[in-house]
Amino acid sequence: MTRDNLKIGLFGYGCVGQGLHDVLNSSKGFKADIVKICVKNPGKPRRLPMSSFTYDKYEILDDPSINLIVELINDADDAFDIVATAMKNGKNVVSANKLMIATHFRELVDMQKRYNVSFLYEASAGASIPIIRNLEEYYDNELLYSLRGILNGTTNYILTSMYNKGTNYESALAEAQQKGFAEIDPTLDVEGWDAKYKLCILTGHAYGVFLDPADVFHHGIKTITKHDIQYAREKGYKIKLVSYVGKTDENHITAFVLPRFIAADKNFYNVDYEYNGVIAEAAFADRQFFYGKGAGGHATGSAVFSDISANSYGYRYEYKKMRQELVPEYTLDHKIEVYVRYSDDKTADLFNFEDVSECFRSKEYKYIVGTLNLKKLFDIKELIFDRDIFIVNTGRKFTD
Amino acid sequence: MTRDNLKIGLFGYGCVGQGLHDVLNSSKGFKADIVKICVKNPGKPRRLPMSSFTYDKYEILDDPSINLIVELINDADDAFDIVATAMKNGKNVVSANKLMIATHFRELVDMQKRYNVSFLYEASAGASIPIIRNLEEYYDNELLYSLRGILNGTTNYILTSMYNKGTNYESALAEAQQKGFAEIDPTLDVEGWDAKYKLCILTGHAYGVFLDPADVFHHGIKTITKHDIQYAREKGYKIKLVSYVGKTDENHITAFVLPRFIAADKNFYNVDYEYNGVIAEAAFADRQFFYGKGAGGHATGSAVFSDISANSYGYRYEYKKMRQELVPEYTLDHKIEVYVRYSDDKTADLFNFEDVSECFRSKEYKYIVGTLNLKKLFDIKELIFDRDIFIVNTGRKFTD
Repeated sequence: MTRDNLKIGLFGYGCVGQGLHDVLNSSKGFKADIVKICVKNPGKPRRLPMSSFTYDKYEILDDPSINLIVELINDADDAFDIVATAMKNGKNVVSANKLMIATHFRELVDMQKRYNVSFLYEASAGASIPIIRNLEEYYDNELLYSLRGILNGTTNYILTSMYNKGTNYESALAEAQQKGFAEIDPTLDVEGWDAKYKLCILTGHAYGVFLDPADVFHHGIKTITKHDIQYAREKGYKIKLVSYVGKTDENHITAFVLPRFIAADKNFYNVDYEYNGVIAEAAFADRQFFYGKGAGGHATGSAVFSDISANSYGYRYEYKKMRQELVPEYTLDHKIEVYVRYSDDKTADLFNFEDVSECFRSKEYKYIVGTLNLKKLFDIKELIFDRDIFIVNTGRKFTD
Repeated sequence: MTRDNLKIGLFGYGCVGQGLHDVLNSSKGFKADIVKICVKNPGKPRRLPMSSFTYDKYEILDDPSINLIVELINDADDAFDIVATAMKNGKNVVSANKLMIATHFRELVDMQKRYNVSFLYEASAGASIPIIRNLEEYYDNELLYSLRGILNGTTNYILTSMYNKGTNYESALAEAQQKGFAEIDPTLDVEGWDAKYKLCILTGHAYGVFLDPADVFHHGIKTITKHDIQYAREKGYKIKLVSYVGKTDENHITAFVLPRFIAADKNFYNVDYEYNGVIAEAAFADRQFFYGKGAGGHATGSAVFSDISANSYGYRYEYKKMRQELVPEYTLDHKIEVYVRYSDDKTADLFNFEDVSECFRSKEYKYIVGTLNLKKLFDIKELIFDRDIFIVNTGRKFTD
């Protein structure tokens, strides 16, 4: 395949699909031909002639003239089916589906090799931030201490809105939904699943490690209250949902998703609303910070487009770090200091802190700041899920 | 060439050369063999055995077993000679020499093609920030509105020190020299030449345009006084030396290097001391910001190392934008609003502002804020050079 005969079969024509379409139409340097778009709902009004669409996936997957599949649908199972079939049929694939990629990561990497095709997914983590390509190309062999990211635009929008406008969680969520930055069912975003899937993908490229999402602790923001924002503000912090992966020693990495206090002099402090940010800390390159839009059809569409362009030049991820001799092992054995705001003393007791540095009780709310092992948090995750508890990594005692 | 038989000939063993050596030694995933290091001064004490060194460049350039030349010397003429000879001899080259690259840019791009070799130079602009690779790989085909960078660590160190400590230019320069962030002869840095060479290199990758450095206006920071810092502080700004390239219309770009006022809510505001920052504004990816160390042996060495690694995988810059149909033309026809602090009224008259928005006179200093065409600034550059004049792009009226 070369630039001249790139024939695209597109799956999905929602926000990102239409964003991609706009980007493609506006590009002067590179024309790619979308042969057909597969969508689910025949009844929905479209801004393109009906002849552009099909409702039968095989019309695209079995079309030998189509050499690149761009998968931009929501359903992860359908997406995996499409992507796997496309690769088996010898077609290159571009996708933005983090849930699908994170849950089938090893399989997808294997398939690329087996069927000798390219599979690119820059838009799946950090949207417009070219972080995967950089981890692949630039941090190759670097002694990477850690990678942390504000990777979820929805939660960042809600947290920024609560901080700036003093609104409560429900209003901030409603506003985000109204502006198109949150889904009608926001579960995957506000519970931290989305941030975790993205973290798992980045960990593959940062450290060559396939993380099973089920092995990674995450805690979202849906239980946040004004009291938590107030605590943060009084100390000069904002709260951001941060995905973290980093070395605990020479041969181990740990990873988790937790709200985190961010001081005013930190790079993440001004990453607000739908923007995303990623910080890489490495032995020699030192600290690097990437900032860009983390949501929206055009920003995500432009990341998809950059993959299409890279693909047309024969670019593939090489997963170099997976092939290096010393791939680190994943561990939950890592100490963190957390702020826990709670209402029920019994629930608080579950944490069984090794060391308590702050304790507060009022009629309205209570909190405790203490040190515990991530393993402990992981063990009680079922027990604290859906309780009135909000957890924040203080970032004050340890480097994560 | 593959990863397994990479044989490096290194030119120069100063700060970056030694930094690279440290990075190479610490890398677990990728071993590269430095066969020989060519240095100038046989008498200088070295931290490696003397057998590692040679003083005859042809011992490296004519050695058929060496397949990669890493050029890290100061002298730009010698560097070009080494790089050109290496390419003619079929060797791949990695360099960090911005002066050499900017002044021979077109020739070097031609030679890569003619001799079918790879020539990488990520460390030449923004040091540890992977900006060239990103412009090549990611912003390909993007509608890039503008690219602006804090690209010179020396001037940024001096400006930060003056702002934070209230010191004058001379003390701040001396401090930067003492800490190794400024050369004994700081001319290239403080006059803005270095920032301009880097801008010319980035413009090649951002827009496919070869800028002749002589056609680009630059004004450095060596005439800055406490009054300028005071003006900035009172208005809530910091002053940063910014390299700018951007579209003026569909088919034209303009470029210049000028100190610029930066407001507290801007990405560049917290890019302090030896750090660098780059902002890309594009139609669909929106605003993206990259931040990382812009100086120091290890940070620069790690960028050189990433080029060595990329080279071992066969990576080459493709200069895609130079091959696109619509390469924009360079123009000086662009309005900017500048603050000019001056002492001599006759010099001030040279600017002949189209529109004056502020005017200030005191016994100690005078300034004027007004709009003029960049072409006008360019025309009077010889006349204002070395006068007691300090120019700052206000950034208030136009988007540059």
